[in-house]
Amino acid sequence: WFSTPIRVGVTEMEEILARVVAPLPAYETREKSPPVPDSNSLELMRFYRSLDKENKVGFLTKLSQDFGVDHKSVSELAVKLLDNQLRDLATVLQVEDRLRYSLTPRYKQLLNHISRVESGVKFLVDLRSDVLEIISAKAIESPNIRELNSMLKSLLSEWFSVGLLQLERITWQSPCEILQKISQYEAVHPIRNWTDLKRRVGPYRRCYAFTHAAMPGEPLVVLHVALTEEISDNIQSIVREFATLESEEDVNKINAAVFYSISSTQAGLQGVELGNYLIKRVVRELQSEFPHMTQFSSLSPIPGFSSWLQGLLSQYRKEGRGSDLLSEQEWKAVEQATKSSPETLALDALRKLTSTSEWMHSERLSHVLEPVLMRLCAWYLYGEKRRGYALNPVANFHLQNGATMWRLNWHADTSPRGVANSCGIMVNYRYFLNDTSNNSARYLQNKVISASEQVLGLVSQFQKNSKL
Amino acid sequence: WFSTPIRVGVTEMEEILARVVAPLPAYETREKSPPVPDSNSLELMRFYRSLDKENKVGFLTKLSQDFGVDHKSVSELAVKLLDNQLRDLATVLQVEDRLRYSLTPRYKQLLNHISRVESGVKFLVDLRSDVLEIISAKAIESPNIRELNSMLKSLLSEWFSVGLLQLERITWQSPCEILQKISQYEAVHPIRNWTDLKRRVGPYRRCYAFTHAAMPGEPLVVLHVALTEEISDNIQSIVREFATLESEEDVNKINAAVFYSISSTQAGLQGVELGNYLIKRVVRELQSEFPHMTQFSSLSPIPGFSSWLQGLLSQYRKEGRGSDLLSEQEWKAVEQATKSSPETLALDALRKLTSTSEWMHSERLSHVLEPVLMRLCAWYLYGEKRRGYALNPVANFHLQNGATMWRLNWHADTSPRGVANSCGIMVNYRYFLNDTSNNSARYLQNKVISASEQVLGLVSQFQKNSKL
Amino acid sequence: WFSTPIRVGVTEMEEILARVVAPLPAYETREKSPPVPDSNSLELMRFYRSLDKENKVGFLTKLSQDFGVDHKSVSELAVKLLDNQLRDLATVLQVEDRLRYSLTPRYKQLLNHISRVESGVKFLVDLRSDVLEIISAKAIESPNIRELNSMLKSLLSEWFSVGLLQLERITWQSPCEILQKISQYEAVHPIRNWTDLKRRVGPYRRCYAFTHAAMPGEPLVVLHVALTEEISDNIQSIVREFATLESEEDVNKINAAVFYSISSTQAGLQGVELGNYLIKRVVRELQSEFPHMTQFSSLSPIPGFSSWLQGLLSQYRKEGRGSDLLSEQEWKAVEQATKSSPETLALDALRKLTSTSEWMHSERLSHVLEPVLMRLCAWYLYGEKRRGYALNPVANFHLQNGATMWRLNWHADTSPRGVANSCGIMVNYRYFLNDTSNNSARYLQNKVISASEQVLGLVSQFQKNSKL
Amino acid sequence: WFSTPIRVGVTEMEEILARVVAPLPAYETREKSPPVPDSNSLELMRFYRSLDKENKVGFLTKLSQDFGVDHKSVSELAVKLLDNQLRDLATVLQVEDRLRYSLTPRYKQLLNHISRVESGVKFLVDLRSDVLEIISAKAIESPNIRELNSMLKSLLSEWFSVGLLQLERITWQSPCEILQKISQYEAVHPIRNWTDLKRRVGPYRRCYAFTHAAMPGEPLVVLHVALTEEISDNIQSIVREFATLESEEDVNKINAAVFYSISSTQAGLQGVELGNYLIKRVVRELQSEFPHMTQFSSLSPIPGFSSWLQGLLSQYRKEGRGSDLLSEQEWKAVEQATKSSPETLALDALRKLTSTSEWMHSERLSHVLEPVLMRLCAWYLYGEKRRGYALNPVANFHLQNGATMWRLNWHADTSPRGVANSCGIMVNYRYFLNDTSNNSARYLQNKVISASEQVLGLVSQFQKNSKL
Repeated sequence: WFSTPIRVGVTEMEEILARVVAPLPAYETREKSPPVPDSNSLELMRFYRSLDKENKVGFLTKLSQDFGVDHKSVSELAVKLLDNQLRDLATVLQVEDRLRYSLTPRYKQLLNHISRVESGVKFLVDLRSDVLEIISAKAIESPNIRELNSMLKSLLSEWFSVGLLQLERITWQSPCEILQKISQYEAVHPIRNWTDLKRRVGPYRRCYAFTHAAMPGEPLVVLHVALTEEISDNIQSIVREFATLESEEDVNKINAAVFYSISSTQAGLQGVELGNYLIKRVVRELQSEFPHMTQFSSLSPIPGFSSWLQGLLSQYRKEGRGSDLLSEQEWKAVEQATKSSPETLALDALRKLTSTSEWMHSERLSHVLEPVLMRLCAWYLYGEKRRGYALNPVANFHLQNGATMWRLNWHADTSPRGVANSCGIMVNYRYFLNDTSNNSARYLQNKVISASEQVLGLVSQFQKNSKL
Repeated sequence: WFSTPIRVGVTEMEEILARVVAPLPAYETREKSPPVPDSNSLELMRFYRSLDKENKVGFLTKLSQDFGVDHKSVSELAVKLLDNQLRDLATVLQVEDRLRYSLTPRYKQLLNHISRVESGVKFLVDLRSDVLEIISAKAIESPNIRELNSMLKSLLSEWFSVGLLQLERITWQSPCEILQKISQYEAVHPIRNWTDLKRRVGPYRRCYAFTHAAMPGEPLVVLHVALTEEISDNIQSIVREFATLESEEDVNKINAAVFYSISSTQAGLQGVELGNYLIKRVVRELQSEFPHMTQFSSLSPIPGFSSWLQGLLSQYRKEGRGSDLLSEQEWKAVEQATKSSPETLALDALRKLTSTSEWMHSERLSHVLEPVLMRLCAWYLYGEKRRGYALNPVANFHLQNGATMWRLNWHADTSPRGVANSCGIMVNYRYFLNDTSNNSARYLQNKVISASEQVLGLVSQFQKNSKL
Repeated sequence: WFSTPIRVGVTEMEEILARVVAPLPAYETREKSPPVPDSNSLELMRFYRSLDKENKVGFLTKLSQDFGVDHKSVSELAVKLLDNQLRDLATVLQVEDRLRYSLTPRYKQLLNHISRVESGVKFLVDLRSDVLEIISAKAIESPNIRELNSMLKSLLSEWFSVGLLQLERITWQSPCEILQKISQYEAVHPIRNWTDLKRRVGPYRRCYAFTHAAMPGEPLVVLHVALTEEISDNIQSIVREFATLESEEDVNKINAAVFYSISSTQAGLQGVELGNYLIKRVVRELQSEFPHMTQFSSLSPIPGFSSWLQGLLSQYRKEGRGSDLLSEQEWKAVEQATKSSPETLALDALRKLTSTSEWMHSERLSHVLEPVLMRLCAWYLYGEKRRGYALNPVANFHLQNGATMWRLNWHADTSPRGVANSCGIMVNYRYFLNDTSNNSARYLQNKVISASEQVLGLVSQFQKNSKL
Repeated sequence: WFSTPIRVGVTEMEEILARVVAPLPAYETREKSPPVPDSNSLELMRFYRSLDKENKVGFLTKLSQDFGVDHKSVSELAVKLLDNQLRDLATVLQVEDRLRYSLTPRYKQLLNHISRVESGVKFLVDLRSDVLEIISAKAIESPNIRELNSMLKSLLSEWFSVGLLQLERITWQSPCEILQKISQYEAVHPIRNWTDLKRRVGPYRRCYAFTHAAMPGEPLVVLHVALTEEISDNIQSIVREFATLESEEDVNKINAAVFYSISSTQAGLQGVELGNYLIKRVVRELQSEFPHMTQFSSLSPIPGFSSWLQGLLSQYRKEGRGSDLLSEQEWKAVEQATKSSPETLALDALRKLTSTSEWMHSERLSHVLEPVLMRLCAWYLYGEKRRGYALNPVANFHLQNGATMWRLNWHADTSPRGVANSCGIMVNYRYFLNDTSNNSARYLQNKVISASEQVLGLVSQFQKNSKL
């Protein structure tokens, strides 16, 4: 990002911005501003795209600082509003409306104009992606950039409102262009080749995406579903089993819908809720296709568990609290299996063991580790929080949607990636359709997690051991 | 509207509103509000639709008054903002953002939720149509209703942003459903039967509409274009000439595109600019189909001219200023033709004459009236203003778009409707593509009308006679 | 047809035919004939279309006579074949193949070429329609024209083989072009306006058509279906009841599919079975949409019954056999109702009565006539034959398809047309899916009609009275 | 094919055939045969598909022998026809028609029925492919099998008549299903991966296919076109140059259309002309897209040249006629380059040299071989015949279409395959649109090849050397 030293002449940038970002019209004449010619927006888009990353930062900083809200006029109106407290309602409403208008950043009009030209919306989505990258890189600390982000998010939220999204089912008959993108965007369980892809849109599978009229041919969020006899407890049976390719679906073998991958494709739409709505729409779609279907569940990865585990073990070692994690019997088993001896060393051994995937190949080690890792993982998902909500982002997503943390599955993802991320454990977040609305409200408002007995059992085992 | 006396129990209405319109979440937790179930929105939509007109007024009044902006929190933040004037930028921006947030009416969330359910956007378009009707009926005087209107308009402007609209060419192969609507919506030159309709989408004609993903099958604004050898000077040659139905287009006979009808179909989208953008898109479309085409013009009706003329004649009679309108020679001609004698009587005769369409059938009367009516009409279009802009709404529309008032056409619409509205006169607003951008800016900002020599000549004749 | 006296120069016609209809290549080089340029076919099509009807007859006569089979070479091969009787199989087969080839009329190649150019297939369909008209007008008696007809039919049968037809469901979303044609082609129960049309493709109705890749936008055969609670016994409830227009279908009210109109649109496809296959395809389609549906039936007109009845009455009067038709009691009732007296006069009265629709308005007359007309009609349908098959063409069509003559319905079509054609009686041909195959075979091979007890009962009443 | 020893019980096969293949109805009742139930055809298709290859041979043999033409009735009619020679035309035509009917093999009806059920047409295409394989494998010598082939071909020719084919342009937006097939079917210049494929349907490329309503999603014949500045003289610039992938087409750089690959995909449609028509349709399509385009040419491989060359060299060696092939100078050059010495050895050296691709890597060898191989190749294409037509099948195809043998290109396909097949030489068959019709006729009827001066020059050089 920040390597290229060639700077666009500041003059050129200022000149273009001054020309293209019109001043906010006076409140009275706000509906009488002449239409901005498309060429303005197109020029700006071309200019921005030609910039290297450093200059993009410069451009966005300048745009957000010099073409933002006119603070002076805001405070004048604030004064007026306070003056007006005693006057009639009509006046109050009018001053409020003026205040609201004066709180519009000058650049907002520009964003609106850009949205109207061809591929303008896509440009703004990508622009916000740049803004987010700047914010997270903390390259500069600018409250104006944050304001720009917030304005962009609010505009994009309107444009990508669910009523404007189209649900598309992706099949082998879909255009190659869209299938290639589906393949590229699949981050959760990478698609290795076109046979693999064909299977993910073939029998016993459904692939849905939201698309948007302003970004044709571009799937915004993609949901992969497996239609199974019962809720799957491992991912290999879904993404590696080739038997299904030519078979025809037998509707009698379809009792459950397993959401095994959901990917957002546009970094610039971060925070614009799409995934949640996609899951709900797909549930409706599946219910109308399979009226008898009652089981809906995710089969989700647990990114971050392994590194959290390593951190935990380090900390316990430092604090000498190894005995709080495993029972005596368990420590013994670890010692025997790893041929280490006293407690601390066993903790080291455990840490080393779980930092690679070798233990997977030993049935004995695997057997020893299962109860330990399962209850630690349950705690990680259920007990670890960030501002009161689940720390794990996938858990947080499904819990917000109203799902129940339903089942942890041992040996569920034995791929190198699965073992590295979460010791091969995966989790089902189950959607009990009658409860999602309540669950969601309780989670969002009271931070209460809905969980099954299996999960709660594992959590309480962890707590007992850890004396929590 | 206001006839039905049965009132919905106020309690029921209040109960539903209280349940469905959630309070605005605190600023801090504004992104943590649980998703509102679709059933809420659906219930409200059903309820509203079941109301009679009087109860709708009651409902909208209550909604806008009791679920609007929290003025107290706005003033608190205004106080805070003024306190904060001396502090750092980040704090200023944050208080401004809180202020902006607090200026959101509580019902805005509801509108957003409704937009997400099926046919919710259409519901809001129709809701605004009701709001506009209440405002224009002046049934009640409520600043809150105006605020509701303004909120709805702003939301609809985002959703119906041009980037989200689809241009559709309507042909005889288009779905019957859409063609029937095209037929119903055509207000300018009514379509009499399906043969008539077939011709308007047949050879030497183009019919375009904007549609929107959230309102499938619903044309929002429709533009009818005739492809002609030269810019048409009368409408009958376009809508009544049946020779074209079976013929194939000869591209060599196509030099001009005449926009002879543009209709907005959704009352609720008033003020959301669509027509302007549709004309521009269609010009681009036609240029790509006919690269050699250079003449683009409307052939427009002049609604209001006849009634303005009657008013003018009445007033001049009252003020005894008849001589200011016609030259002596002209008065004589009127006297002779109408067999009336002294001046005042001639004015009466003229007024009576122009109040019906009989003069059209007499070549002599027609000949006498042509110069008089043409220059009065030119003045009506060019000289009569409302807040500085053209009084005639069609003129105002095309002038805002940057068109030039190009040619008044005598005997251009000899249908009863045409004679009744504008003594059969029509006008071409011509789009000189290189000038529209400038014209539009000069009109909107400086109220300068771009007009041809013919129009200016007629205007100056009027002024000379009228001693203006 | 045969009025226009202007004749195309015979020379021109001969010249074009000689140029365009290439000689049949020798058997050996039959696959080495150079491709015929499309321009040949296009020229011939243009030429033929420019002819008036008389010249078309001339053209077709010449084509079929002068460019048919080479009889000489056929007989030479016949001689050779008989010579070869004793030789080996390979030789026999080869001579047979040569014989088969030599039996190809020279013009067949031309027809093949025409089928390849744009709208060539449609041209041939229309050409055959002309040929059929010539044959049925008996303007000329030419076995060659019959041969041409038979060749065309055989080619069209190949091209319009069911595997090449597309089933299209016609709805209000279908292109206007196709819906207008559906409206025009509906001969059985004419569609009066577009609201009427909208209803016939709306809820509780299905409209299906076969189309063909070579004739896009042209429905070939159209089937209208009403979805009802029970098999309809009158047509007005289907084509005149407007309640259904806006309602949504309630699947629980749909138990029966009533085929109330089937129309072939292309005269030139006479004898190419399409209607039969369309009904079968539609049954499959409906079964997949409504798995519980078990009742499939037509509600069919009985064209020809009234005129047959008039003929019968005339003949009985001539033969003085009135008493064979009605029982004494019935005659008395007729006498009373018509105020006529002795038998012969009653026969006259009956004849007169049934020749107009007035009796329909009298409940008493209607009551008297019901049993009489019902049993006569049953006999007409069941007992009157042409070459052993049902004389009534609609009956013959459904019986060939394997339907059962299921129920005669009194007062089933009270429209003027319905009364004029069949005294208001209609009939259901019911499709019992398990029996159609057998029924069809028994009818086609043994001329046995499958009929219900109601029908057989009426027939036997007729026979008893008539002493048959 | 012929390895599996398990035989289906002959009884079962006979039983099914006897049941499913109905006897030919009598001529008089040929239109009164009951419709055959689809289940018959479906059963037969299932049965046939379940057979192994050996049993398929048995099945087809039995079908064609036992259910063919009734020879007895044919000869009876032949007798009758000869008797009837003196009688009237109507009788002659009728007996001919009976004869024609009696020449129909009994199984033809079955084939017709199969064509009507779903995927029946595809079944027959594949069936013919089996028949062709049997014939070419000469596993059995059966004139009946040939007759079956000929019947199938004639039926398929009707169904796949050009008027029933749809031209589809294949792009990156086409369904994945069809693009994957395009990729599989490309035999001429294999497609290596999906990027490769994307390029072949991307800018400066066109890919067209004929599809058929009865075989949806199945391209029947595929034509790849490169749009170039001038007629390409090598294939690598077309299939290996990656620069074009993202660029936009510049219409000013498009002067020529180069058909660089044409593939038929259905073995069972052998002899049914599709490629010829596809080229013609594509030319029309390109002319309408690029009205200024005048150069149309293939860039074609020369399969068989290398093996013909090896044969030629062997034969000349055997006959001691080496001196007839190369000039003295050329022999010397070969000797020097290959370090061999006397004539015969040089011939051996030459043979060895051209049997691998090593010489390609030596500029010197390449230089020596160019004139020799070019004139031998010209002779191979122009002079070598089979039944009077070009021996090389690709040449024969384009010459039949009316193309001119225009230019031989040295180093035109340097891929291993290209060198192995034709020493890297390729040829342009150029389509001069005004001449194709004449060229085609002259080639097909008089076996005259249209060739350019370059080609004729090379041929005459060959003849001079070879003393031909």
